[in-house]
Amino acid sequence: MSRRTPHPFRDKLRLVVITDRERAGSRGVEAVVDAALRGGARCIQLREKVLGAGEVLPLAHRLRRQTLAHDALFIVNDRVDLALACAADGVHLGPDDLPVQEVRRMAPADFLVGFSTDNPATAATAVSEGADYLGCGTLWPTASKGDAGRAIGPGGLASVCAAVSAPVVAIGGITLDRLPLLKDTGAAGVAVIHAVMTARDPESVARSFLTGFSPDPSPPS
Amino acid sequence: MSRRTPHPFRDKLRLVVITDRERAGSRGVEAVVDAALRGGARCIQLREKVLGAGEVLPLAHRLRRQTLAHDALFIVNDRVDLALACAADGVHLGPDDLPVQEVRRMAPADFLVGFSTDNPATAATAVSEGADYLGCGTLWPTASKGDAGRAIGPGGLASVCAAVSAPVVAIGGITLDRLPLLKDTGAAGVAVIHAVMTARDPESVARSFLTGFSPDPSPPS
Repeated sequence: MSRRTPHPFRDKLRLVVITDRERAGSRGVEAVVDAALRGGARCIQLREKVLGAGEVLPLAHRLRRQTLAHDALFIVNDRVDLALACAADGVHLGPDDLPVQEVRRMAPADFLVGFSTDNPATAATAVSEGADYLGCGTLWPTASKGDAGRAIGPGGLASVCAAVSAPVVAIGGITLDRLPLLKDTGAAGVAVIHAVMTARDPESVARSFLTGFSPDPSPPS
Repeated sequence: MSRRTPHPFRDKLRLVVITDRERAGSRGVEAVVDAALRGGARCIQLREKVLGAGEVLPLAHRLRRQTLAHDALFIVNDRVDLALACAADGVHLGPDDLPVQEVRRMAPADFLVGFSTDNPATAATAVSEGADYLGCGTLWPTASKGDAGRAIGPGGLASVCAAVSAPVVAIGGITLDRLPLLKDTGAAGVAVIHAVMTARDPESVARSFLTGFSPDPSPPS
Protein backbone atom coordinates (compact mmCIF):
# COMPACT_ATOMS: atom_id res chain seq x y z
CA MET A 1 0.00 0.00 0.00
CA SER A 2 1.53 3.26 -1.10
CA ARG A 3 -0.69 5.72 0.72
CA ARG A 4 1.62 6.02 3.69
CA THR A 5 4.79 7.91 4.31
CA PRO A 6 7.50 5.69 5.78
CA HIS A 7 6.50 5.23 9.40
CA PRO A 8 6.40 8.85 10.60
CA PHE A 9 4.83 7.60 13.81
CA ARG A 10 7.51 5.00 14.58
CA ASP A 11 9.26 7.11 17.21
CA LYS A 12 6.03 7.62 19.13
CA LEU A 13 5.64 3.87 19.58
CA ARG A 14 8.78 3.66 21.72
CA LEU A 15 6.51 3.43 24.74
CA VAL A 16 2.85 2.51 24.35
CA VAL A 17 0.86 2.91 27.55
CA ILE A 18 -2.29 0.79 27.57
CA THR A 19 -5.05 1.85 29.93
CA ASP A 20 -6.74 -0.30 32.54
CA ARG A 21 -9.47 1.26 34.65
CA GLU A 22 -9.21 -1.29 37.43
CA ARG A 23 -5.45 -1.08 37.75
CA ALA A 24 -5.48 2.72 37.63
CA GLY A 25 -7.78 2.52 40.65
CA SER A 26 -9.20 5.53 42.40
CA ARG A 27 -6.71 7.91 40.78
CA GLY A 28 -8.54 7.40 37.51
CA VAL A 29 -7.12 6.53 34.11
CA GLU A 30 -6.79 10.20 33.14
CA ALA A 31 -4.44 11.00 36.04
CA VAL A 32 -2.18 8.05 35.25
CA VAL A 33 -2.17 8.88 31.54
CA ASP A 34 -1.39 12.51 32.27
CA ALA A 35 1.60 11.46 34.37
CA ALA A 36 2.79 9.03 31.70
CA LEU A 37 2.57 11.76 29.07
CA ARG A 38 4.57 14.09 31.30
CA GLY A 39 7.10 11.29 31.60
CA GLY A 40 7.46 11.24 27.83
CA ALA A 41 5.04 8.55 26.62
CA ARG A 42 3.82 9.44 23.14
CA CYS A 43 1.27 6.71 22.53
CA ILE A 44 -1.76 5.94 24.68
CA GLN A 45 -4.00 2.99 23.91
CA LEU A 46 -7.49 2.85 25.39
CA ARG A 47 -8.43 -0.66 26.37
CA GLU A 48 -11.90 -1.25 27.84
CA LYS A 49 -13.44 -4.69 27.96
CA VAL A 50 -16.52 -4.09 30.11
CA LEU A 51 -18.21 -0.75 29.49
CA GLY A 52 -20.33 -0.01 26.44
CA ALA A 53 -18.91 2.24 23.74
CA GLY A 54 -21.19 5.08 24.79
CA GLU A 55 -20.19 4.71 28.41
CA VAL A 56 -16.49 4.88 27.62
CA LEU A 57 -16.80 7.70 25.08
CA PRO A 58 -16.40 10.56 27.61
CA LEU A 59 -13.12 9.02 28.82
CA ALA A 60 -12.05 8.55 25.20
CA HIS A 61 -12.69 12.23 24.46
CA ARG A 62 -10.66 13.25 27.51
CA LEU A 63 -7.75 11.00 26.56
CA ARG A 64 -7.90 12.41 23.04
CA ARG A 65 -7.53 15.92 24.43
CA GLN A 66 -4.70 14.89 26.75
CA THR A 67 -2.75 13.14 24.00
CA LEU A 68 -3.18 16.04 21.57
CA ALA A 69 -1.77 18.38 24.19
CA HIS A 70 1.39 16.25 24.27
CA ASP A 71 1.58 15.53 20.52
CA ALA A 72 1.01 11.89 21.40
CA LEU A 73 -0.84 9.21 19.48
CA PHE A 74 -4.18 7.98 20.75
CA ILE A 75 -5.19 4.46 19.79
CA VAL A 76 -8.40 2.63 20.68
CA ASN A 77 -8.51 -1.09 21.24
CA ASP A 78 -10.78 -3.19 19.02
CA ARG A 79 -13.58 -0.71 18.26
CA VAL A 80 -13.19 1.27 15.06
CA ASP A 81 -16.49 3.05 15.63
CA LEU A 82 -15.40 4.30 19.04
CA ALA A 83 -12.03 5.34 17.60
CA LEU A 84 -13.74 7.35 14.86
CA ALA A 85 -16.20 8.89 17.30
CA CYS A 86 -13.42 10.31 19.48
CA ALA A 87 -11.13 11.19 16.55
CA ALA A 88 -8.44 8.80 17.72
CA ASP A 89 -5.38 8.29 15.54
CA GLY A 90 -6.11 4.64 15.07
CA VAL A 91 -7.27 1.30 16.32
CA HIS A 92 -5.48 -1.76 17.61
CA LEU A 93 -6.86 -5.09 16.46
CA GLY A 94 -6.42 -8.58 17.82
CA PRO A 95 -7.14 -11.89 16.11
CA ASP A 96 -10.79 -11.91 17.34
CA ASP A 97 -11.42 -8.37 16.14
CA LEU A 98 -12.45 -7.17 12.69
CA PRO A 99 -9.97 -8.09 9.95
CA VAL A 100 -7.35 -5.52 9.05
CA GLN A 101 -8.49 -5.18 5.45
CA GLU A 102 -12.11 -4.51 6.51
CA VAL A 103 -10.99 -1.80 8.89
CA ARG A 104 -8.67 -0.32 6.28
CA ARG A 105 -11.68 -0.07 3.97
CA MET A 106 -13.92 1.79 6.39
CA ALA A 107 -11.37 4.12 7.98
CA PRO A 108 -9.74 7.27 6.61
CA ALA A 109 -6.42 6.76 4.80
CA ASP A 110 -4.37 8.30 7.59
CA PHE A 111 -6.02 6.22 10.32
CA LEU A 112 -3.48 3.91 11.95
CA VAL A 113 -4.24 0.22 12.17
CA GLY A 114 -2.26 -1.91 14.58
CA PHE A 115 -2.50 -5.67 14.71
CA SER A 116 -1.40 -8.15 17.36
CA THR A 117 0.39 -11.34 16.42
CA ASP A 118 3.32 -13.44 17.51
CA ASN A 119 3.72 -15.09 14.12
CA PRO A 120 6.06 -13.73 11.42
CA ALA A 121 3.97 -14.90 8.46
CA THR A 122 0.77 -13.53 10.00
CA ALA A 123 2.58 -10.26 10.65
CA ALA A 124 3.67 -9.98 7.02
CA THR A 125 0.14 -10.73 5.84
CA ALA A 126 -1.35 -8.14 8.18
CA VAL A 127 1.03 -5.49 6.85
CA SER A 128 0.20 -6.43 3.27
CA GLU A 129 -3.48 -6.04 4.17
CA GLY A 130 -2.92 -2.58 5.56
CA ALA A 131 -1.64 -2.83 9.12
CA ASP A 132 0.58 0.13 9.97
CA TYR A 133 2.30 -1.43 12.94
CA LEU A 134 2.30 -4.63 14.93
CA GLY A 135 1.93 -5.55 18.54
CA CYS A 136 3.99 -8.65 19.22
CA GLY A 137 3.80 -10.90 22.24
CA THR A 138 3.36 -12.22 24.78
CA LEU A 139 7.07 -11.68 25.42
CA TRP A 140 7.03 -13.07 28.93
CA PRO A 141 4.24 -14.57 31.03
CA THR A 142 1.94 -11.90 32.42
CA ALA A 143 -1.13 -11.52 34.55
CA SER A 144 -2.59 -8.63 32.54
CA LYS A 145 -4.10 -10.75 29.81
CA GLY A 146 -5.28 -14.15 30.89
CA ASP A 147 -5.80 -15.29 27.32
CA ALA A 148 -2.54 -14.03 25.89
CA GLY A 149 -1.13 -17.44 25.03
CA ARG A 150 2.41 -18.75 25.21
CA ALA A 151 5.38 -16.49 25.80
CA ILE A 152 7.63 -16.04 22.76
CA GLY A 153 10.62 -14.32 24.32
CA PRO A 154 13.07 -11.99 22.54
CA GLY A 155 13.81 -14.59 19.88
CA GLY A 156 10.19 -14.79 18.81
CA LEU A 157 10.00 -11.00 18.77
CA ALA A 158 13.09 -10.77 16.57
CA SER A 159 11.52 -13.20 14.09
CA VAL A 160 8.45 -11.00 13.73
CA CYS A 161 10.55 -7.85 13.41
CA ALA A 162 12.61 -9.50 10.67
CA ALA A 163 9.46 -10.36 8.72
CA VAL A 164 8.15 -6.81 8.31
CA SER A 165 9.40 -3.28 7.79
CA ALA A 166 6.49 -1.85 9.78
CA PRO A 167 7.21 -0.92 13.40
CA VAL A 168 6.82 -3.73 15.92
CA VAL A 169 5.91 -3.07 19.54
CA ALA A 170 6.77 -5.74 22.11
CA ILE A 171 4.07 -6.54 24.65
CA GLY A 172 3.51 -8.86 27.56
CA GLY A 173 5.48 -9.01 30.76
CA ILE A 174 7.68 -6.04 29.85
CA THR A 175 9.47 -4.68 32.91
CA LEU A 176 12.33 -2.24 33.36
CA ASP A 177 14.61 -5.15 34.29
CA ARG A 178 13.89 -6.95 31.04
CA LEU A 179 14.41 -4.03 28.68
CA PRO A 180 18.06 -4.94 27.99
CA LEU A 181 16.87 -8.32 26.70
CA LEU A 182 15.00 -6.52 23.89
CA LYS A 183 18.13 -4.95 22.46
CA ASP A 184 18.90 -6.02 18.89
CA THR A 185 15.45 -7.56 18.40
CA GLY A 186 14.47 -4.81 15.99
CA ALA A 187 11.47 -3.73 18.07
CA ALA A 188 10.36 -0.11 17.68
CA GLY A 189 8.99 0.04 21.19
CA VAL A 190 7.37 -1.61 24.15
CA ALA A 191 3.78 -1.64 25.34
CA VAL A 192 2.89 -1.83 29.01
CA ILE A 193 -0.26 -2.04 31.05
CA HIS A 194 0.63 -3.10 34.56
CA ALA A 195 3.98 -1.32 34.88
CA VAL A 196 2.50 2.14 34.35
CA MET A 197 -1.13 1.71 35.43
CA THR A 198 -0.17 0.40 38.87
CA ALA A 199 2.90 2.60 39.35
CA ARG A 200 3.00 4.88 42.37
CA ASP A 201 4.82 7.40 40.17
CA PRO A 202 3.73 6.76 36.57
CA GLU A 203 5.67 9.78 35.30
CA SER A 204 9.04 8.49 36.46
CA VAL A 205 8.22 4.94 35.43
CA ALA A 206 7.39 6.12 31.91
CA ARG A 207 10.59 8.12 31.83
CA SER A 208 12.58 5.08 32.98
CA PHE A 209 11.09 2.94 30.22
CA LEU A 210 12.02 5.52 27.62
CA THR A 211 15.54 5.76 29.02
CA GLY A 212 15.90 2.02 29.28
CA PHE A 213 14.74 1.13 25.79
CA SER A 214 16.43 2.54 22.72
CA PRO A 215 15.03 1.08 19.55
CA ASP A 216 17.40 0.01 16.85
CA PRO A 217 17.65 2.46 13.95
CA SER A 218 14.69 2.34 11.56
CA PRO A 219 15.21 0.17 8.52
CA PRO A 220 15.85 2.13 5.32
CA SER A 221 12.57 3.00 3.65
CA MET B 1 -32.62 16.17 8.64
CA SER B 2 -33.70 16.27 5.02
CA ARG B 3 -31.52 13.53 3.55
CA ARG B 4 -34.14 10.82 3.93
CA THR B 5 -37.19 9.90 1.98
CA PRO B 6 -40.23 9.45 4.22
CA HIS B 7 -39.69 6.11 5.91
CA PRO B 8 -39.50 3.79 2.90
CA PHE B 9 -38.37 1.05 5.27
CA ARG B 10 -41.32 1.38 7.66
CA ASP B 11 -43.21 -1.61 6.25
CA LYS B 12 -40.18 -3.85 6.75
CA LEU B 13 -40.17 -3.12 10.45
CA ARG B 14 -43.53 -4.80 10.95
CA LEU B 15 -41.66 -7.79 12.36
CA VAL B 16 -38.06 -7.44 13.52
CA VAL B 17 -36.43 -10.76 14.35
CA ILE B 18 -33.49 -10.37 16.71
CA THR B 19 -30.94 -13.17 16.74
CA ASP B 20 -29.75 -15.10 19.77
CA ARG B 21 -27.15 -17.83 19.25
CA GLU B 22 -27.95 -19.62 22.48
CA ARG B 23 -31.69 -19.67 21.94
CA ALA B 24 -31.32 -20.76 18.32
CA GLY B 25 -29.42 -23.74 19.69
CA SER B 26 -27.95 -26.46 17.56
CA ARG B 27 -30.03 -25.47 14.52
CA GLY B 28 -27.90 -22.38 14.22
CA VAL B 29 -28.98 -18.78 13.82
CA GLU B 30 -28.90 -18.98 10.03
CA ALA B 31 -31.49 -21.77 9.89
CA VAL B 32 -33.88 -19.91 12.18
CA VAL B 33 -33.39 -16.67 10.27
CA ASP B 34 -33.95 -18.43 6.97
CA ALA B 35 -37.23 -19.83 8.26
CA ALA B 36 -38.31 -16.46 9.62
CA LEU B 37 -37.57 -14.85 6.24
CA ARG B 38 -39.60 -17.52 4.49
CA GLY B 39 -42.37 -16.71 6.95
CA GLY B 40 -42.30 -13.10 5.80
CA ALA B 41 -40.00 -11.31 8.25
CA ARG B 42 -38.31 -8.40 6.49
CA CYS B 43 -35.93 -7.18 9.17
CA ILE B 44 -33.26 -9.23 10.90
CA GLN B 45 -31.19 -7.74 13.71
CA LEU B 46 -27.92 -9.40 14.69
CA ARG B 47 -27.39 -9.30 18.43
CA GLU B 48 -24.19 -10.79 19.82
CA LYS B 49 -22.95 -9.95 23.28
CA VAL B 50 -20.12 -12.44 23.72
CA LEU B 51 -18.08 -13.06 20.57
CA GLY B 52 -15.56 -10.60 19.19
CA ALA B 53 -16.48 -8.63 16.07
CA GLY B 54 -14.10 -10.70 13.97
CA GLU B 55 -15.54 -13.93 15.32
CA VAL B 56 -19.10 -12.91 14.49
CA LEU B 57 -18.26 -11.43 11.08
CA PRO B 58 -18.72 -14.68 9.12
CA LEU B 59 -22.24 -15.06 10.55
CA ALA B 60 -22.91 -11.42 9.77
CA HIS B 61 -21.88 -11.93 6.15
CA ARG B 62 -24.16 -14.97 5.88
CA LEU B 63 -27.12 -13.11 7.39
CA ARG B 64 -26.46 -10.24 4.99
CA ARG B 65 -26.70 -12.61 2.04
CA GLN B 66 -29.86 -14.25 3.43
CA THR B 67 -31.60 -10.93 4.00
CA LEU B 68 -30.66 -9.59 0.56
CA ALA B 69 -32.15 -12.70 -1.01
CA HIS B 70 -35.48 -11.82 0.67
CA ASP B 71 -35.29 -8.04 0.17
CA ALA B 72 -35.11 -7.77 3.95
CA LEU B 73 -33.29 -5.25 6.12
CA PHE B 74 -30.24 -6.36 8.04
CA ILE B 75 -29.41 -4.42 11.20
CA VAL B 76 -26.48 -4.95 13.56
CA ASN B 77 -26.76 -4.32 17.26
CA ASP B 78 -24.43 -1.75 18.84
CA ARG B 79 -21.36 -2.06 16.59
CA VAL B 80 -21.22 0.37 13.70
CA ASP B 81 -17.87 -1.00 12.56
CA LEU B 82 -19.23 -4.53 12.30
CA ALA B 83 -22.31 -3.21 10.49
CA LEU B 84 -20.14 -1.39 7.95
CA ALA B 85 -17.85 -4.41 7.53
CA CYS B 86 -20.75 -6.67 6.52
CA ALA B 87 -22.60 -3.99 4.54
CA ALA B 88 -25.59 -4.10 6.84
CA ASP B 89 -28.41 -1.64 6.30
CA GLY B 90 -27.94 -0.10 9.69
CA VAL B 91 -27.21 -0.32 13.36
CA HIS B 92 -29.39 -0.42 16.44
CA LEU B 93 -28.17 1.59 19.40
CA GLY B 94 -29.04 1.44 23.07
CA PRO B 95 -28.41 4.03 25.75
CA ASP B 96 -24.94 2.57 26.58
CA ASP B 97 -23.88 2.54 22.93
CA LEU B 98 -22.37 5.34 20.87
CA PRO B 99 -24.58 8.43 20.62
CA VAL B 100 -26.87 8.69 17.60
CA GLN B 101 -25.28 11.88 16.32
CA GLU B 102 -21.78 10.36 16.42
CA VAL B 103 -22.95 7.35 14.45
CA ARG B 104 -24.80 9.56 11.99
CA ARG B 105 -21.54 11.41 11.39
CA MET B 106 -19.44 8.33 10.63
CA ALA B 107 -21.96 6.30 8.63
CA PRO B 108 -23.17 6.75 5.04
CA ALA B 109 -26.28 8.90 4.58
CA ASP B 110 -28.50 5.94 3.73
CA PHE B 111 -27.35 3.90 6.73
CA LEU B 112 -30.25 3.30 9.12
CA VAL B 113 -29.81 4.19 12.77
CA GLY B 114 -32.22 2.74 15.30
CA PHE B 115 -32.33 3.80 18.91
CA SER B 116 -33.93 2.18 21.95
CA THR B 117 -35.83 4.21 24.46
CA ASP B 118 -39.04 4.11 26.45
CA ASN B 119 -39.16 7.87 26.92
CA PRO B 120 -41.07 10.18 24.56
CA ALA B 121 -38.74 13.15 25.01
CA THR B 122 -35.65 10.99 24.53
CA ALA B 123 -37.25 9.51 21.43
CA ALA B 124 -37.88 12.94 19.93
CA THR B 125 -34.32 13.99 20.70
CA ALA B 126 -32.91 10.84 19.12
CA VAL B 127 -34.89 11.46 15.94
CA SER B 128 -33.75 15.08 15.83
CA GLU B 129 -30.17 13.79 16.15
CA GLY B 130 -30.61 11.45 13.24
CA ALA B 131 -32.28 8.26 14.42
CA ASP B 132 -34.34 6.71 11.63
CA TYR B 133 -36.51 4.54 13.82
CA LEU B 134 -37.00 3.68 17.46
CA GLY B 135 -37.12 0.52 19.48
CA CYS B 136 -39.50 1.03 22.37
CA GLY B 137 -39.85 -1.15 25.42
CA THR B 138 -39.79 -3.15 27.51
CA LEU B 139 -43.51 -3.62 26.77
CA TRP B 140 -43.97 -6.49 29.17
CA PRO B 141 -41.59 -8.23 31.56
CA THR B 142 -39.25 -10.57 29.69
CA ALA B 143 -36.41 -12.97 30.35
CA SER B 144 -34.49 -12.12 27.15
CA LYS B 145 -32.88 -8.99 28.49
CA GLY B 146 -32.10 -9.01 32.19
CA ASP B 147 -31.26 -5.31 32.22
CA ALA B 148 -34.21 -4.07 30.22
CA GLY B 149 -35.79 -2.09 33.03
CA ARG B 150 -39.42 -1.57 33.92
CA ALA B 151 -42.25 -2.60 31.63
CA ILE B 152 -44.10 0.32 30.03
CA GLY B 153 -47.11 -1.45 28.53
CA PRO B 154 -49.14 -0.31 25.52
CA GLY B 155 -49.77 3.10 27.08
CA GLY B 156 -46.08 3.86 27.35
CA LEU B 157 -45.59 2.70 23.77
CA ALA B 158 -48.37 4.97 22.54
CA SER B 159 -46.74 7.94 24.25
CA VAL B 160 -43.48 7.34 22.41
CA CYS B 161 -45.26 6.82 19.10
CA ALA B 162 -47.12 10.10 19.59
CA ALA B 163 -43.85 11.94 20.16
CA VAL B 164 -42.21 11.10 16.82
CA SER B 165 -43.11 10.59 13.19
CA ALA B 166 -40.34 8.00 12.77
CA PRO B 167 -41.39 4.35 12.92
CA VAL B 168 -41.52 2.83 16.40
CA VAL B 169 -40.98 -0.88 16.98
CA ALA B 170 -42.35 -2.39 20.17
CA ILE B 171 -40.04 -4.77 22.02
CA GLY B 172 -40.00 -6.82 25.17
CA GLY B 173 -42.32 -9.65 26.06
CA ILE B 174 -44.16 -9.52 22.73
CA THR B 175 -46.16 -12.71 22.19
CA LEU B 176 -48.87 -13.66 19.71
CA ASP B 177 -51.45 -13.43 22.49
CA ARG B 178 -50.51 -9.87 23.27
CA LEU B 179 -50.53 -8.50 19.72
CA PRO B 180 -54.13 -7.25 19.97
CA LEU B 181 -53.07 -5.08 22.89
CA LEU B 182 -50.76 -3.14 20.55
CA LYS B 183 -53.57 -2.02 18.28
CA ASP B 184 -54.00 1.76 18.09
CA THR B 185 -50.66 2.42 19.80
CA GLY B 186 -49.17 3.77 16.57
CA ALA B 187 -46.36 1.20 16.52
CA ALA B 188 -44.96 0.31 13.10
CA GLY B 189 -43.96 -3.16 14.19
CA VAL B 190 -42.85 -5.57 16.84
CA ALA B 191 -39.43 -7.00 17.64
CA VAL B 192 -39.00 -10.47 19.05
CA ILE B 193 -36.12 -12.60 20.23
CA HIS B 194 -37.49 -15.50 22.21
CA ALA B 195 -40.70 -16.10 20.24
CA VAL B 196 -38.89 -16.81 16.98
CA MET B 197 -35.45 -18.00 18.12
CA THR B 198 -36.89 -20.76 20.30
CA ALA B 199 -39.80 -21.64 18.02
CA ARG B 200 -40.06 -25.22 16.77
CA ASP B 201 -41.40 -23.78 13.52
CA PRO B 202 -39.99 -20.26 13.16
CA GLU B 203 -41.51 -19.85 9.69
CA SER B 204 -45.08 -20.26 10.86
CA VAL B 205 -44.44 -18.24 14.00
CA ALA B 206 -43.11 -15.36 11.91
CA ARG B 207 -46.12 -15.63 9.63
CA SER B 208 -48.46 -15.60 12.62
CA PHE B 209 -46.86 -12.45 13.98
CA LEU B 210 -47.28 -10.72 10.62
CA THR B 211 -50.90 -11.81 10.43
CA GLY B 212 -51.57 -10.85 14.02
CA PHE B 213 -50.09 -7.38 13.92
CA SER B 214 -51.32 -4.78 11.46
CA PRO B 215 -49.68 -1.43 12.01
CA ASP B 216 -51.80 1.67 11.92
CA PRO B 217 -51.50 3.66 8.67
CA SER B 218 -48.33 5.67 8.36
CA PRO B 219 -48.64 9.30 9.36
CA PRO B 220 -48.72 11.70 6.41
CA SER B 221 -45.19 12.72 5.43
